[in-house]
Amino acid sequence: MPRSVDVILTNANVLTMNAAFDRFAPGAVAVEGGRIAAVGPAEQIGREYTAAETVDCSGQVVTPGLVNAHTHAPMTLVRGLADDLRLDVWLLGYMMPVEREFVRPESVRLGTRLACAEMIRSGVTCFLDMYYFEESVATAAADAGMRAVCAETILKYPTPDANSSEHSLHRCREFIEHWQGHPLITPAVGPHAHYTCTPEVLQACSRLACDFDVPLATHVSETASEVETSLLEHGMRVVPWLRQNGLLESKLIAAHCVHLVGNEIRLLLEAGAGVTHCPTSNLKLASGIAPVTRMLQIGLRVGIGTDGPASNNDLDMFDETRLAALLAKGSTGDPTALPARQAYALATIEGARAIHLGDEIGSLEPGKRADLAVVDVSGLHSTPKFERDPDAIYAQLVYAAKSSDVIHVMVEGRWLMRDRVLLTLDEAEINAESSQIATRIDAFLVEREQSVLSKLLIIGGVKQEESYEVQVKGRLGPGALRQVEAGLANPAISITKQSHYRQYDSYFLFDQAEPSAEQLRFREDEVVDESGEVVDARSRLTLIGPSSEREFPGAVMLSRSRYYSPADKSLRFYQEYFQPASVRQVDKERRRWRIRYKNTYFAVNLDRLTRPPEDCYFIEIKSRTWSERDAERKAGLVVELMELFGEVEAVETIPDGYVDL
Amino acid sequence: MPRSVDVILTNANVLTMNAAFDRFAPGAVAVEGGRIAAVGPAEQIGREYTAAETVDCSGQVVTPGLVNAHTHAPMTLVRGLADDLRLDVWLLGYMMPVEREFVRPESVRLGTRLACAEMIRSGVTCFLDMYYFEESVATAAADAGMRAVCAETILKYPTPDANSSEHSLHRCREFIEHWQGHPLITPAVGPHAHYTCTPEVLQACSRLACDFDVPLATHVSETASEVETSLLEHGMRVVPWLRQNGLLESKLIAAHCVHLVGNEIRLLLEAGAGVTHCPTSNLKLASGIAPVTRMLQIGLRVGIGTDGPASNNDLDMFDETRLAALLAKGSTGDPTALPARQAYALATIEGARAIHLGDEIGSLEPGKRADLAVVDVSGLHSTPKFERDPDAIYAQLVYAAKSSDVIHVMVEGRWLMRDRVLLTLDEAEINAESSQIATRIDAFLVEREQSVLSKLLIIGGVKQEESYEVQVKGRLGPGALRQVEAGLANPAISITKQSHYRQYDSYFLFDQAEPSAEQLRFREDEVVDESGEVVDARSRLTLIGPSSEREFPGAVMLSRSRYYSPADKSLRFYQEYFQPASVRQVDKERRRWRIRYKNTYFAVNLDRLTRPPEDCYFIEIKSRTWSERDAERKAGLVVELMELFGEVEAVETIPDGYVDL
Repeated sequence: MPRSVDVILTNANVLTMNAAFDRFAPGAVAVEGGRIAAVGPAEQIGREYTAAETVDCSGQVVTPGLVNAHTHAPMTLVRGLADDLRLDVWLLGYMMPVEREFVRPESVRLGTRLACAEMIRSGVTCFLDMYYFEESVATAAADAGMRAVCAETILKYPTPDANSSEHSLHRCREFIEHWQGHPLITPAVGPHAHYTCTPEVLQACSRLACDFDVPLATHVSETASEVETSLLEHGMRVVPWLRQNGLLESKLIAAHCVHLVGNEIRLLLEAGAGVTHCPTSNLKLASGIAPVTRMLQIGLRVGIGTDGPASNNDLDMFDETRLAALLAKGSTGDPTALPARQAYALATIEGARAIHLGDEIGSLEPGKRADLAVVDVSGLHSTPKFERDPDAIYAQLVYAAKSSDVIHVMVEGRWLMRDRVLLTLDEAEINAESSQIATRIDAFLVEREQSVLSKLLIIGGVKQEESYEVQVKGRLGPGALRQVEAGLANPAISITKQSHYRQYDSYFLFDQAEPSAEQLRFREDEVVDESGEVVDARSRLTLIGPSSEREFPGAVMLSRSRYYSPADKSLRFYQEYFQPASVRQVDKERRRWRIRYKNTYFAVNLDRLTRPPEDCYFIEIKSRTWSERDAERKAGLVVELMELFGEVEAVETIPDGYVDL
Repeated sequence: MPRSVDVILTNANVLTMNAAFDRFAPGAVAVEGGRIAAVGPAEQIGREYTAAETVDCSGQVVTPGLVNAHTHAPMTLVRGLADDLRLDVWLLGYMMPVEREFVRPESVRLGTRLACAEMIRSGVTCFLDMYYFEESVATAAADAGMRAVCAETILKYPTPDANSSEHSLHRCREFIEHWQGHPLITPAVGPHAHYTCTPEVLQACSRLACDFDVPLATHVSETASEVETSLLEHGMRVVPWLRQNGLLESKLIAAHCVHLVGNEIRLLLEAGAGVTHCPTSNLKLASGIAPVTRMLQIGLRVGIGTDGPASNNDLDMFDETRLAALLAKGSTGDPTALPARQAYALATIEGARAIHLGDEIGSLEPGKRADLAVVDVSGLHSTPKFERDPDAIYAQLVYAAKSSDVIHVMVEGRWLMRDRVLLTLDEAEINAESSQIATRIDAFLVEREQSVLSKLLIIGGVKQEESYEVQVKGRLGPGALRQVEAGLANPAISITKQSHYRQYDSYFLFDQAEPSAEQLRFREDEVVDESGEVVDARSRLTLIGPSSEREFPGAVMLSRSRYYSPADKSLRFYQEYFQPASVRQVDKERRRWRIRYKNTYFAVNLDRLTRPPEDCYFIEIKSRTWSERDAERKAGLVVELMELFGEVEAVETIPDGYVDL
């Protein structure tokens, strides 16, 4: 007598993705109690099983659900916020400021619901996530009926959900304790990356993952500069460093792995680690192309991930798998590399193995969880069909099918989508709520970007130091140095300090039409000794107010500089982040004397401009000031001092930086 | 009073893709007489125009239709037929044999209809095609209401539609004369590529294109080996060679351009040529990545093409544009390369300029043809939306939108799709007819692939030469050469010819279980002179029948070899094409004497096996035979001869090729 089960999907082209790549056409899958009861020829399953619900899948493919092996689901909410930027500008200028402000349990839940809806629509039944408030990700995924490996992210810095790494680790432990054993959710530990964690944090993460026997997900060698940092700081590449800190003892899932060398690949293999290939993100951020074919050659477990939707910009595993297959060929020069069947395996069973769920999901085999997708291959772009090559169906799925061809999706025996209608999530509601938060993020950024100052503040590290100076400038002839030294020899002047720099200034000009426009100066200072040798260097960023606040008699100006910060990022970064209308370069050699004159301190600078190649000399006398009265008094002294330096061609309004010369 | 027009699309996010990238949101487009009457803010258009039909496009983007700047539309019919193969195996083993058999006017029309249906569905309004029976492509495209540049393909070889290049050129001239002036179809000349055309053919093509002032489309530097061929044969790279043959004087459209160097890019720019970037095809066939950013930097016109659906495997310009944007970043290491807005321009206005239709289509501007697509960006994968960056909409289209988001398409003011329903093509009918032809192609290939012989025949160049030989083999000791020479000194033997080879044999074994299985031998012969110098080399392919047809007394065998052909392709080609179960390598040094004995001719071979490194010697005595009686007589003589060579360890059944030793 036929055995009774919950659901039978029949008359399909069933791709089991088991070790033998068995395929049944027409085939059927019997589902009972959330697991697969049987897979086989339609006729045989029909004889051996009856079901409450039988789904006719004629002209359709039944496949294991796709496994998105690396993403940051809640980042759907910042999808399309900032694109075509360099990693640092994108991250420091946009993602991190917005995350600091908007990442809350509610927004994480909303972003995850949006991500789940999109993933279910595209045939994904399981994803690996790394984010903050990971309990909200887990809750949202479980509510949507999706399977997920949820890794609570841990950094050495404060995060949106923890004020220290100890706090993060504590939260992670509680998270694991709460979710372990859940049928859909696998909790995991997520040290963000080797360069954002101390060795102690890495080691604690590994211990935590091993203690609870849960996976550990981290970013590995995504960019070349990461590897350089590791070589410089640890004297070894990234994977050996991870091993030294115990991560290879855990059930490791290493995302990206773009810049690995042979022995690192072997170390990961020996550790039984999984690797997640994220081709779109790696191309979009110009990180490189992971050596996937080499990994596969030695038998490393490799899955495919979309990465976060802010760097992709979608969660489409069909796109991702196609790109993986194409890139493998293009990057090796071998059109037979990563053929369609193997690429499709990476998106299913190999992805499951990479995230350490290979025994439970990834293929349609009796006893495994009933996670599957039904794909309609009757569309024009899947026409015609050829039977000669039994692997043609995989080529059709990888090279021609689209995520919009997925029509039904089941996880753990439960339908999440039927006939392209989501059953566990309300699309309209998600759409509306997402739009609300997008409006707020938009407003936040628009406000911050209204002035250079607020853009400066948003990237952090800025010291607010409003300073006023009275200053005068005069042009000198070729004998300038002797002339100034003669002036300084005047007995009324005592020299307290003397220094010699080369200064390389880049002025970012924003709006030439407006006279009160702010300027941002990126200055690199080289301190040189007697012999002209560079003995020190530093760079700083200064936001300069309108060139002159007030003028005093004798061409003395009152100028104001408002904010400065040590410039820990490159000129390129600031230029791409601030997007000035133009940039002016002014290089000069500066000799500086700190002097005392009539009980007041002044700085005397002798500048020799070298770029634009002016090769002319300027004397500048300036002093800080703090009140109207003080400024007036010092303006008078400055005029006196200037006279001591002899024949000076006082130029009326030479601005501080020689920018408009 | 408002002016009356045919159609107004309103309340849309209108991307004009004009020179200023003007965008109107909410915007509107007024269409009249197949052309764009006006584009502007919705409110203004609503005030100035009334229309018989007004389409509310709230939440939708109205964009110029996409331009697929390089494809072979009828090849939809071989989509998915053979994938993940090397170019030569794919082309010579599958595409060309199938095209020889199935490319007819009716199949070209059907394939084009399938392609048009797919392209309309994905927002493409214009495509450039190169194929055979181009008049059928033109007819099908015009009937479907699509715009197309149709280039009749011309080669130096016979093609499915012409028996010579003269014939092709004649057909092309007639084709141009017939279609020139058609509102939708631009006829063009399509010399296939520099390496498949003689200089005379190239020159004739250029003259034809210039005489009629029509575009000329060709493949340029798709692979590195093409460039090598050009350097070798013409002493110059491809573009200078094309210039020398007049192609740069025509309205040139150069597809692929993967392997161009700086001065070639400049030559194309100076010629006003357009380039078509086909990133999917170039990756899939591992041809390389075109230097698109360099081309764009100097202002070359670049469009995007899907290439034929047999090497893609779809006609999805959304996929293609995204890949172009991603690859530019990945290949240059610069994430700001080819930003979304520019990538989208390549898919629209720049594509139009590249195919020399920039004045008519590619942007939404008054006076231009009304070719447009309406894209629904309300999907989950396009959620949320940010307004801060005015270019965000382009990023949304390029990085997140899918071809399935296209809902309406219009060409020349005529609706081709409304609400995702095709209005000019019958999908079900196309699907059914395509399936029929696929079934026939399947059967054709399956039949041809049933035996090694038919697979051999399909790639051509095979001589059918059934030959029977009686032969005996014996193992000799280290003094073999002296022993054989002593035997040959026997007065009963006269030597007619003597030679010395090194032979490198690769045996393709197909089915070890079956004793009568065929073997295919790829043999490279090196003829060496007295001093051991190689004086000649050749390779040939031989299909070998069952190892022994019959045995005679004295271990003499009757063997049969059936077909051979000069092996003009590489071992790698044959191995990938025939996909043997295993390959055995046998290398040997062979001394051969042609002798006469009792008025009968024999060959005596002394083989020294070098690989597998046997370093043992065999004597082989054989003679061709043609009848049972002749074979019996010669078998007796062979036994006699063998005795003349002294102490020989006659091995019972050493097969011809030592494969099973």
